[in-house]
Amino acid sequence: MISEKMKPLVQNNSVIRIMFEEGKRLAAIYGAENVYDFSLGNPNVPAPAEVNQAILDILKEEDSTYVHGYMSNAGYEDVRDTIANSLNERFGTKLNQNHILMTVGAASGLNIILKVLLNPGDEVLTFAPYFVEYGNYVRNYDGKLEVVSPNTVDFQPNLEEFETRIHANTKAVIINTPNNPTGVIYSDATLRRMAEILRKKEAEFGTTIVLISDEPYRELAYDGTEVPYVTNYYDDTVVCYSYSKSLSLPGERIGYLVIPDAFKDQEEVFTAATIANRVMGCVNAPSLMQRVVKRCIETNAVVNLEAYDKNRNLLYNSLREYGFTCIKPQGAFYLFLKSPIADEKEFCAHAQKYNLLIVPGSSFACAGYVRIAYCVSYEQIERALPAFKKLAEDYGL
Amino acid sequence: MISEKMKPLVQNNSVIRIMFEEGKRLAAIYGAENVYDFSLGNPNVPAPAEVNQAILDILKEEDSTYVHGYMSNAGYEDVRDTIANSLNERFGTKLNQNHILMTVGAASGLNIILKVLLNPGDEVLTFAPYFVEYGNYVRNYDGKLEVVSPNTVDFQPNLEEFETRIHANTKAVIINTPNNPTGVIYSDATLRRMAEILRKKEAEFGTTIVLISDEPYRELAYDGTEVPYVTNYYDDTVVCYSYSKSLSLPGERIGYLVIPDAFKDQEEVFTAATIANRVMGCVNAPSLMQRVVKRCIETNAVVNLEAYDKNRNLLYNSLREYGFTCIKPQGAFYLFLKSPIADEKEFCAHAQKYNLLIVPGSSFACAGYVRIAYCVSYEQIERALPAFKKLAEDYGL
Repeated sequence: MISEKMKPLVQNNSVIRIMFEEGKRLAAIYGAENVYDFSLGNPNVPAPAEVNQAILDILKEEDSTYVHGYMSNAGYEDVRDTIANSLNERFGTKLNQNHILMTVGAASGLNIILKVLLNPGDEVLTFAPYFVEYGNYVRNYDGKLEVVSPNTVDFQPNLEEFETRIHANTKAVIINTPNNPTGVIYSDATLRRMAEILRKKEAEFGTTIVLISDEPYRELAYDGTEVPYVTNYYDDTVVCYSYSKSLSLPGERIGYLVIPDAFKDQEEVFTAATIANRVMGCVNAPSLMQRVVKRCIETNAVVNLEAYDKNRNLLYNSLREYGFTCIKPQGAFYLFLKSPIADEKEFCAHAQKYNLLIVPGSSFACAGYVRIAYCVSYEQIERALPAFKKLAEDYGL
Repeated sequence: MISEKMKPLVQNNSVIRIMFEEGKRLAAIYGAENVYDFSLGNPNVPAPAEVNQAILDILKEEDSTYVHGYMSNAGYEDVRDTIANSLNERFGTKLNQNHILMTVGAASGLNIILKVLLNPGDEVLTFAPYFVEYGNYVRNYDGKLEVVSPNTVDFQPNLEEFETRIHANTKAVIINTPNNPTGVIYSDATLRRMAEILRKKEAEFGTTIVLISDEPYRELAYDGTEVPYVTNYYDDTVVCYSYSKSLSLPGERIGYLVIPDAFKDQEEVFTAATIANRVMGCVNAPSLMQRVVKRCIETNAVVNLEAYDKNRNLLYNSLREYGFTCIKPQGAFYLFLKSPIADEKEFCAHAQKYNLLIVPGSSFACAGYVRIAYCVSYEQIERALPAFKKLAEDYGL
């Protein structure tokens, strides 16, 4: 019954999502406290108190048909202005409501901009390790995702190879910083060099290459590390933002696209993105959550970052102590561990015997590594440490 | 910059949405009370009190990381079971959570099932007049929308022509009952005959044809008219439901798909639809609103239908009195008026001189008619009546 395009998707259903379901199954058997599910980026830290307070205030103060009703497909104008002003204050951008499109999370934002840009056969570049869904998003519009090999020294993007991989039909590049699965933040030097390469290649091929910055983890940066704002480096940038992590609202599906003034044919692209939002069936981003976002910006609400930071330090220090190899994540809530054996899938399968659920790096085009999502309770990490220790011992670390 | 597929969409941006923006512009000039915007299906009747009460109770009683968090891509299991049980009670179906997929409104549900089913070149049939977006949804997946001519006698679907328009590559048929823009409800006899024709053609071509029932207006039926449940007529039916109108939550984007047990390859199709929901970027339907829906079903909440009914009677009776021709809508909140001149676009342009915003029937593939959305305040209709009267006089009715 299903279409040719859906068949491989059904056959290779998301490993991460299958693990999420497996975790629920194991929890039902062994009890939730005895299953150490580090598979999914489902925030354990609750939304800041300002979120529920904003909901209560909105229901009290704003008209029901307005709060739950249709608005322009791009989103409420006042919400978009509030976001634009907040970005301007923080990053020195010059945005207004005409540059902000409210979306059903960053995933929908990515789909929108890819639908707007891609013709069949167009290439989109990204850097391994990368979020597996990018390939599906690009194939939705008959594009081709091309993956630059990982730089396993520090997991900054491999820019030497990048330069050789850009062709005349390279339409876009997707980056993700802070990065899922490595926790690495792209540095100022990285973005500067990346922009130089793109401009050089644009001139060489006479094309326009769009830099798509997927930023659901922007607010999750530790040790005071700055996350450079990509539109400040390269004009033809689209930012895909989500409140899934910064406000712990992943189920609510609320985010936005930034298409700045300097973007080529900005007005046409923004109009097309607004229409794409509509015809793909989202119509608009969920209305109540749009209004919540506005109030949360006004009260500077952000998720309790210290909790993730505490998790990060406990997990990183313990795993290093047990003999595992990994770089310390600077952002997001993932730790990218070197598998003690080349076949990291076997390593993951072995870990599962201790009820430890972790995701093979091959799911991110980076075999030999595994992703551990530490957006879980501190207690889960504490309870899981003996299992990680035994695992290290099993491999003679 | 934009893709070939997006170009015609930008050039022929939705007439209805443009009018919505035009209405906001005129309201700013003349004052909202002097602009009679009947263009958009944006419910004026507020959500029933149970909606906001449910939100308050959920925030008090349920865990924040659960309420705002990820769940299975198909939606919360308890919500899906509640919906299934409610449908079983009302319509004698035999559904459970494995047949219900929570979606970002019916528009997203339609996109999901079309992505699951269509290969390039596949035909999808629908009946004029029809909701303009169907064409865009079908083209998203490189399908071809074919439109059966309207039956302007009673606006039940034209089944004689339908039978001749089904081919070997007809993959699906989209129906919409209660209908936008006519307000007509497909009768038991209509659905019975439609199912017969489909089964006959399936046998003739050795194919499977899916009946997609777009049902955002199911709960909006007047004079006690029953809206037959389509899965009871034809096995290979997918129902696309939305709470946009039944709970006045159009901005919240919450609905569901029904893929019943009898559907061919049900498990594979349901899995594919769940994956499509994810890879198209929605990931899941907004979480808080899923939980709201559950409580609203438990309290039998439904929008105040009497308000729409009152609007319907005032508008219908007045327009008939002024000499206009139209059938009385049985459901939804639209009235489909015969234009007094053949060129209904000119009629609409003339109406706009009185600040009356109505949508040309050609936007629904039914020239010579106009759609009047009466999901507005009773007072707006009262205030608009003199303008409608003058309009009738201008055309010598």
